Amino acid sequence: MVDVAIIGAGQTPYGNLSSTLKEMWAEAAQKAISSVDKGLESSLIEEAYIGSTAFGGQQIGNTAALMTEHSGMEGISVRRVENACASSGFAFRDAWMAIKSGEADVVVAGGIEKMNDLTPERKRFWLGVSGDTEWERLAGLTFPATYALMARRYFHEFDSNHDDLVHVAVKNHAHGFANEVAHIRKEVSFEKAASGFMVADPLTLYDCCPTSDGASCVILAADHVARKLSDTPVWVKGSGAASDYLALHDRESSTQILASQRAAKKAYSMSGLTANDIGLAEVHDCFTIAEVMACEDLGFANRGEGGLFAREGRGILNQGDVTINPSGGLKSKGHPLGSTGVGQIVEAFKQLRNEVEPSRQVLDVEDALCHNVGGSGATCAVHILGREI
Amino acid sequence: MVDVAIIGAGQTPYGNLSSTLKEMWAEAAQKAISSVDKGLESSLIEEAYIGSTAFGGQQIGNTAALMTEHSGMEGISVRRVENACASSGFAFRDAWMAIKSGEADVVVAGGIEKMNDLTPERKRFWLGVSGDTEWERLAGLTFPATYALMARRYFHEFDSNHDDLVHVAVKNHAHGFANEVAHIRKEVSFEKAASGFMVADPLTLYDCCPTSDGASCVILAADHVARKLSDTPVWVKGSGAASDYLALHDRESSTQILASQRAAKKAYSMSGLTANDIGLAEVHDCFTIAEVMACEDLGFANRGEGGLFAREGRGILNQGDVTINPSGGLKSKGHPLGSTGVGQIVEAFKQLRNEVEPSRQVLDVEDALCHNVGGSGATCAVHILGREI
Repeated sequence: MVDVAIIGAGQTPYGNLSSTLKEMWAEAAQKAISSVDKGLESSLIEEAYIGSTAFGGQQIGNTAALMTEHSGMEGISVRRVENACASSGFAFRDAWMAIKSGEADVVVAGGIEKMNDLTPERKRFWLGVSGDTEWERLAGLTFPATYALMARRYFHEFDSNHDDLVHVAVKNHAHGFANEVAHIRKEVSFEKAASGFMVADPLTLYDCCPTSDGASCVILAADHVARKLSDTPVWVKGSGAASDYLALHDRESSTQILASQRAAKKAYSMSGLTANDIGLAEVHDCFTIAEVMACEDLGFANRGEGGLFAREGRGILNQGDVTINPSGGLKSKGHPLGSTGVGQIVEAFKQLRNEVEPSRQVLDVEDALCHNVGGSGATCAVHILGREI
Repeated sequence: MVDVAIIGAGQTPYGNLSSTLKEMWAEAAQKAISSVDKGLESSLIEEAYIGSTAFGGQQIGNTAALMTEHSGMEGISVRRVENACASSGFAFRDAWMAIKSGEADVVVAGGIEKMNDLTPERKRFWLGVSGDTEWERLAGLTFPATYALMARRYFHEFDSNHDDLVHVAVKNHAHGFANEVAHIRKEVSFEKAASGFMVADPLTLYDCCPTSDGASCVILAADHVARKLSDTPVWVKGSGAASDYLALHDRESSTQILASQRAAKKAYSMSGLTANDIGLAEVHDCFTIAEVMACEDLGFANRGEGGLFAREGRGILNQGDVTINPSGGLKSKGHPLGSTGVGQIVEAFKQLRNEVEPSRQVLDVEDALCHNVGGSGATCAVHILGREI
């Protein structure tokens, strides 16, 4: 079976962008194409998978074709993949399978969203629909409130309290401060993050990621092409994806994300690696409590010890067991819903090639993990990438 | 490389349904699962690809997970695929590649849409966004008007007039009359169809498909599983997909759909077949002129002779060169946007297994083609299915 590598990666900055969706996609795609070591003729690209929740609620359709016609990919087979905030994690998985299938040698995976053209009400709407509508959104549960319920339950079940979440926020803001594509480049003190404006008790402003504009794009290639076009391909060593019930009340537990556990299990098994082998992980910290749970679900911390893991600084850049969210994560790098999954992969690609800003480069990293969650945990894609296969 | 077969297929009736989206998906999925000759444990299903334009504009997200949690597929890897009206044609293609990749042995592809809960304005909106928004929809061009422009140009360039389109309508209504899942089961005379209520000159009511509710689902399996679970698997012999510019003014021609030609070329080449080998084709006749162009784009008629093809009845059930739209097509069977692509494959599967109503069974058919177009031709997926591989 063919091995698959990433040979190019690019993204727009995340933030409040003035460019249009087409411009954003073209920027990400062109950066990805031009990052291929030995150059890439765009005519080699055979398929494109573009993740987006709703193209920022813009009133357009057939959007994958609309994006690719403006980025040197005219005429190829394209589609949009939608799984709420995990849209582009799944776009990446499907792009990887397209190459594994032998049907294509060079495939594009990307993601895009534009949140800041929306009114606050529409932002809330497009976030809200990613969770359960029947039992949660229409009953008044906002997305921060959904994760606030998880946090409250987590504090009840385990030896943890809000201070643990503050540690996550402080770490991610510190990591993102040096990331020139990050949406919020501000270091915050423990005291400041601990006394943030209350959003949904116990979650404050510093527990919640921003909603960003952004696009991301990676080029995947079959091994024989990858070795020809790249000196430093990044290999896809494991891919796993899974789902769970959309509504919290249907799930076995609200202090773990079963979809993450299932996806991680498959990805680890395929790669032959365990959590101990991972040097850096981009995890889906839409809220700080989500990172705490992710560290457990992905095996970096024992069950119930995700809070302790944060408290002890075990995810801090080059200081802990594993660097968690060297990009700043959704908290600081930002969260343009459909772009987030492939954006994580762009970060891992650059880290594995020693191409990020020196002050936030993870040292001696061989393998990286990317963890992308849809909604409040109904879908999850996990990918393990490495320098060598 | 593994061969892929369809081993089960099911769908709801198309029409104005009172059931919810969840009920519709469950019905299609259960019919597909229970149609597997020797039974299928749903725990064997590893991936699901569900096509939908907008879940009928309902205010829900993460929809693939929401559908599958209610149909015995809890926990598996799922995603929504969106390419306007070609959503489930691409969902099928991606499901097929998932099996080709070796990552899964049993995969579900489906589609769903609920159009009749929408107000007429919202229906127009969700159809309109499948075409170009910037230059067409916001300038007042409705979807029928887009195809009316193509028809006018077609009549200008070739020896054809509205009578040719009437022949398409009469044929498809005759075919769909016997189809118990069809939305509009009415035979119409040439005279009646020729004098229909004007929608967008030259297209009348009888040139336009209805907007339907419906869901469809097929089960794909790797050859070793397919031969074990099915006595009569239907093989995927060719798959091709392509795109084109969204806006008409960007395209080389408005009397042919280049995305269809590109997709068909790939599918024929993979299958080793030509148009002459095809016994039946389900083609995307959202408007009668679309069927005329499709017959050319797919090679059943020479360029400029799609009108003549219709006039001479060469697509009539068991009478012409090839049966075009034995289901009644979008015109009579109906058009629940995201469901249409896989719905065509359900029809081809049943035809190839001699399982449709006797009065509309295509005789001695070995190979079938399904042609699913997104919007006004920006995306297209073509699949060739056969009894033998």
